[in-house]
Amino acid sequence: MKNAGEGTPSDLSSDLSSIDGRPRVVIDAVRPQVDGYRYPVKRVLGDTLIVEADLLADGHDRLGAMLLFRPRGDSPWREVRLEPVLAPPGVRRPAPGHPVHAPQGDAQPMGDAQPINDGWRASFVLDAIGTWEYTVSAWVDAWTTWAWGLRRKLQAGQDIELDLRTGAELLTAAAIRARGPAGRDGDAVALRRFAERVAGNDSDGRRPDEDAAARAQVALSPEVMSLMRAHPDRSAATTHEPPLLVTVDPVQAAFSAWYEMFPRSCGEDGRHGTLRDAEKRLAYIADMGFDIVYLPPIHPIGRTHRKGRDNSLIAAPDDPGSPWAIGSAEGGHLAIHPELGTLEDFRHFLSAARAHGLAVAMDIALQTSPDHPYVKEHPEWFVHRPDGSIQFAENPPKKYEDIYPFNFAGPAWESLWREARGIFLYWIEQGVRVFRVDNPHTKSIPFWRWCISSVKERHPEVIFLAEAFTRPKLMDALAKVGFSQSYTYFTWRTTKAELTTYVQSLVDTDRKEFFRPNFWPNTPDILPEHLQFGTRATFVVRAVLAATLSPSWGVYGPAFELQEKEPRAGSEEYANNEKYQLRHWDLARADSLRPVLRRLNHIRRDNPALQRLPGTVFHQTDNQALLCYSRVDEALSDPILVVVNLDSHNRQAGWLSLDLEALGIAGEARFQVHDLMSESRYLWQGPRAFVSLDPQVMPAHIFRVRRHVHTEQTFEYYL
Amino acid sequence: MKNAGEGTPSDLSSDLSSIDGRPRVVIDAVRPQVDGYRYPVKRVLGDTLIVEADLLADGHDRLGAMLLFRPRGDSPWREVRLEPVLAPPGVRRPAPGHPVHAPQGDAQPMGDAQPINDGWRASFVLDAIGTWEYTVSAWVDAWTTWAWGLRRKLQAGQDIELDLRTGAELLTAAAIRARGPAGRDGDAVALRRFAERVAGNDSDGRRPDEDAAARAQVALSPEVMSLMRAHPDRSAATTHEPPLLVTVDPVQAAFSAWYEMFPRSCGEDGRHGTLRDAEKRLAYIADMGFDIVYLPPIHPIGRTHRKGRDNSLIAAPDDPGSPWAIGSAEGGHLAIHPELGTLEDFRHFLSAARAHGLAVAMDIALQTSPDHPYVKEHPEWFVHRPDGSIQFAENPPKKYEDIYPFNFAGPAWESLWREARGIFLYWIEQGVRVFRVDNPHTKSIPFWRWCISSVKERHPEVIFLAEAFTRPKLMDALAKVGFSQSYTYFTWRTTKAELTTYVQSLVDTDRKEFFRPNFWPNTPDILPEHLQFGTRATFVVRAVLAATLSPSWGVYGPAFELQEKEPRAGSEEYANNEKYQLRHWDLARADSLRPVLRRLNHIRRDNPALQRLPGTVFHQTDNQALLCYSRVDEALSDPILVVVNLDSHNRQAGWLSLDLEALGIAGEARFQVHDLMSESRYLWQGPRAFVSLDPQVMPAHIFRVRRHVHTEQTFEYYL
Repeated sequence: MKNAGEGTPSDLSSDLSSIDGRPRVVIDAVRPQVDGYRYPVKRVLGDTLIVEADLLADGHDRLGAMLLFRPRGDSPWREVRLEPVLAPPGVRRPAPGHPVHAPQGDAQPMGDAQPINDGWRASFVLDAIGTWEYTVSAWVDAWTTWAWGLRRKLQAGQDIELDLRTGAELLTAAAIRARGPAGRDGDAVALRRFAERVAGNDSDGRRPDEDAAARAQVALSPEVMSLMRAHPDRSAATTHEPPLLVTVDPVQAAFSAWYEMFPRSCGEDGRHGTLRDAEKRLAYIADMGFDIVYLPPIHPIGRTHRKGRDNSLIAAPDDPGSPWAIGSAEGGHLAIHPELGTLEDFRHFLSAARAHGLAVAMDIALQTSPDHPYVKEHPEWFVHRPDGSIQFAENPPKKYEDIYPFNFAGPAWESLWREARGIFLYWIEQGVRVFRVDNPHTKSIPFWRWCISSVKERHPEVIFLAEAFTRPKLMDALAKVGFSQSYTYFTWRTTKAELTTYVQSLVDTDRKEFFRPNFWPNTPDILPEHLQFGTRATFVVRAVLAATLSPSWGVYGPAFELQEKEPRAGSEEYANNEKYQLRHWDLARADSLRPVLRRLNHIRRDNPALQRLPGTVFHQTDNQALLCYSRVDEALSDPILVVVNLDSHNRQAGWLSLDLEALGIAGEARFQVHDLMSESRYLWQGPRAFVSLDPQVMPAHIFRVRRHVHTEQTFEYYL
Repeated sequence: MKNAGEGTPSDLSSDLSSIDGRPRVVIDAVRPQVDGYRYPVKRVLGDTLIVEADLLADGHDRLGAMLLFRPRGDSPWREVRLEPVLAPPGVRRPAPGHPVHAPQGDAQPMGDAQPINDGWRASFVLDAIGTWEYTVSAWVDAWTTWAWGLRRKLQAGQDIELDLRTGAELLTAAAIRARGPAGRDGDAVALRRFAERVAGNDSDGRRPDEDAAARAQVALSPEVMSLMRAHPDRSAATTHEPPLLVTVDPVQAAFSAWYEMFPRSCGEDGRHGTLRDAEKRLAYIADMGFDIVYLPPIHPIGRTHRKGRDNSLIAAPDDPGSPWAIGSAEGGHLAIHPELGTLEDFRHFLSAARAHGLAVAMDIALQTSPDHPYVKEHPEWFVHRPDGSIQFAENPPKKYEDIYPFNFAGPAWESLWREARGIFLYWIEQGVRVFRVDNPHTKSIPFWRWCISSVKERHPEVIFLAEAFTRPKLMDALAKVGFSQSYTYFTWRTTKAELTTYVQSLVDTDRKEFFRPNFWPNTPDILPEHLQFGTRATFVVRAVLAATLSPSWGVYGPAFELQEKEPRAGSEEYANNEKYQLRHWDLARADSLRPVLRRLNHIRRDNPALQRLPGTVFHQTDNQALLCYSRVDEALSDPILVVVNLDSHNRQAGWLSLDLEALGIAGEARFQVHDLMSESRYLWQGPRAFVSLDPQVMPAHIFRVRRHVHTEQTFEYYL
């Protein structure tokens, strides 16, 4: 006969020598992943990473698959079996994240669970901070395929004698795999015995006449299936290349409450505050339940083109200047502003904060005042104009002559990058672990990618918050290249539709894998219009929304808790802005929101549902002023259900239509909602519930939903 | 001062030597792409490939970007500028695909169009069959950034003297770039002159006192902007790596009408038909407008375990056997069944088909009968059972003892793969260019990936149709690794909801980039229930749906046009199936659907809207039996609007609610719909239209929508 291969041209470059033809499994759509496997996903210490993949092979053979994972480096892979995903496709939303394993009990023969739509799943706990790798390895499993066929032939009453011989061969091969250094000799012995028994030629002669059906039952016994599951033939496995990455951060990277304040406003009697003065404020901040205290830059402030009060172009002699105009004769990014104190004072501040359970976030603004020592020592790091002057910051026609930007992509980029990274490393050495980065979107994105990964290589516990209020995809890009948290548009999202759409864009898209929002009702740069014209209730609502819609939130205080709301006319800027002058705040004022903030932060600490981003569902209400949403965590703790009256002036009432499935409540079950703000408790049943919120009293319910309320007594009790 | 860089540890592996710090642009989400850039997208010869990407850089600097593309190989890149995407985000659906360029006219200063949501777009024509590469290169454009700032400073009346000097430097640098072998010296000279003029030191002294505003106008003039656009500084460009791939196939890979028939049933007077007999059928097929005639396997048929009539286990002596049981003493996959004729006859058949404008699709079933010469000559290509026998095909408890599958992942995979590829190459040598591959989902997917890419490397014009009726992701996997077309679930989708959902899963997802459907109302393996119990109208409806919902469709004839519908009891199989016996068809029957099929294929040829997959929109109707959809092509030719009565027994009438935007019709404009089946024409206005379809007459409208009907006369005329 003709041989087709003979006629095959030899000049086709599709060379077989680089191919192994034995692996038959194709691994598709490994997830979570970001942008075609190009960036790491993000998780925090202790999280369970749930990995899914589509595993495909020709025919109806059964597959085996392993999830491989390890902290990045040379360590051997750890492994866990992937199991078929058995939840039906097209469910309205994924069950809130907890691993679903195939049942391995009596209901279904072992090893015969088939996935819906070819999806497989496994999970593992991220028990160390740093970068981890994970990937999937899968193979056609000869044993489970054989067992599946045997079961069907048995049911059909077919002759299985030959099949049993095949099975015995598979058992014998497994016995060989089970031997040796990594194997368990006990397993090898057991497998060999089972092989003989299934083959029907048991060497000890005790079961010489066991019939085929009995030998099949031996082969299909849980003991044999377990042994074979422990020693699969993975010689023709396909492994997804390259591995995917997950950045594992400390918990605070995902769950944190920030309090920003100006140390220089902590002085007594109108004096310029020092870091020692600021220390005295720590107890107040810790008492409110915040866990990160964030200081604007604490470096020497330039004099040239210093801005005066209210951002005026001419500073008075005693105006302190903007802390973001970094650098003077006294030093630059590695120095402490002398009026604030010394490096020793700063270290003392750090340890005092630690004693209060507070981390300190340092503000890094990679720019200089014209007086920064860099300007003279490293003119090559700046852009020069044709007249030899250094180019100040501008957004034409606006000029910022008090600020010189660095030229991150200029000819001297390499020494500049090293210096800039060195600033982070220096302060890490002093004990700082959290950085709030000023305007990162005006510095080269590739620089951030390198700088953050390089810093985290040595100090994986460090957290970077991106203060970028810019276009959505640029904010995404910064998060993808490494920022741990990001400021958001929350500050300007006020209506029910705006809040719903915005939060959904964070939690219901792939963005949740890399973008961790930090919700701020105000900042020293932003006094949003709704606060300017708001009431006390407006401030409470903004705090409730920020604290319960995002696992990380922050306020600029004491301006926030004291409900400072006077703007510089026609702007979103505060009047008498602390950026340009000292302020003295009466923390003891009776109308302070301090108790509300304390309550919010304690609710957050007590409720895991509020500590991670995904699992946020909005529920329908029949009143546009009523926003209702719930949060659940992966472990399915008690859900938190929040109802907010967005109208700060009037009582608003209406009916909720709860999505009970999202709350994990069966249709007719009673459940208790416990308002953690007021301590009121209600017993509800079914999806409809009436709420009425008076902004003069409390504009929001934060309900903890207790699902296990069964008895009439309980019912009576709560009524 | 302290130098932060000095304290930097030198042992961080994030080495700068492998990094270029000057490129600032990040390129994200290049599209189209498949599965994280892991598979090629598919197009056909002459298509315009529209490429988009998100381009991001820090700050508000302006960007420049180029789409690079080339047939894969060593040729230099071709280039076309990417332009900002200016369509607002959140439009209900993308405009049907034609390239949208930024306006470069007076409305907006040149080079200052900014994209919505950072999206950029370019397109190019795929003018050769084969694999192409494409990628995106982007840079911060110093000139357009400068021009943008200058414009704003001019508007604000600021001093621009220094800026003009910067501009002159940029012009001078461009003049240097414009020089040299690849440059245009004329451009260089012009740029140098403009540099001098903008600098204010024009060497010829004729404009010594031109003021700054006038020099700015020179710099911003269209002539200068064009020159600078022609010579951008790309030294710090970012290029997306690796390039993406697009497989460019012949048009028939996307747009084809298939007719399957058994040559052995073409004989006269009950004789076994030959290829010469089958040739006589070609005129009939071509006349119906089909362009691919597809033959079941034409190789010698095995005798061992040959199946008899109606798939009976025992064949009568004169039963011809199933053509898919390939191989006998007369030869295997490279031989022609002697009763059909000789290789010479087959070549003659190919050339006769070509003369009729028909391509011939050959059926390749990579399996053997027990009598195939491979069984003796290459036992290593099969799985052997413990008793030494060869494992026949099985899906326990079902056995297919007449078929031996190959062991594609066995120890001898390499020689088997070469042989299998050789089968395709052999028949390509004989003139075949289209293959219908039998059950590819039961053969190793990695084999197909290698085989198809290897065959197409030499013969990029070859088309592979995957006959896989299996799980959706396995069908996707086969398409991703190279199959040009795929059978689909259309055969079983009959209700309005089923058809809508299924077609949307093909056209509204990324699947459209790699999966090309081929809709078949019937096959020799499938006589679906709705045809068994249907009327003539049912057959017409299925043909209309297949021919207008998918650019590729096919029928198994003459069973289809003669409305054969007798099943083997309780099954989806035809009774007296041609797979196991000869059939003789009366092609001249008065009730043949031949004229309908001819009309359908001619409508398809005349209307570009029906020749590509995307651009399919379903319109609402108030009657569940009325399915309404429209198709548009990239060039926005006249849309096709189809209305089908899915009830083959009763007249159904109702109101359509047309999505006029999808048809490219302004709200109040009149438009003509021209029924290409009946030649009736109607003048419609607005989204509401009444239709009534009688299955006894014609169960479908196929309207060509003519949008340019303006005058009262026209209106009168059509009324």
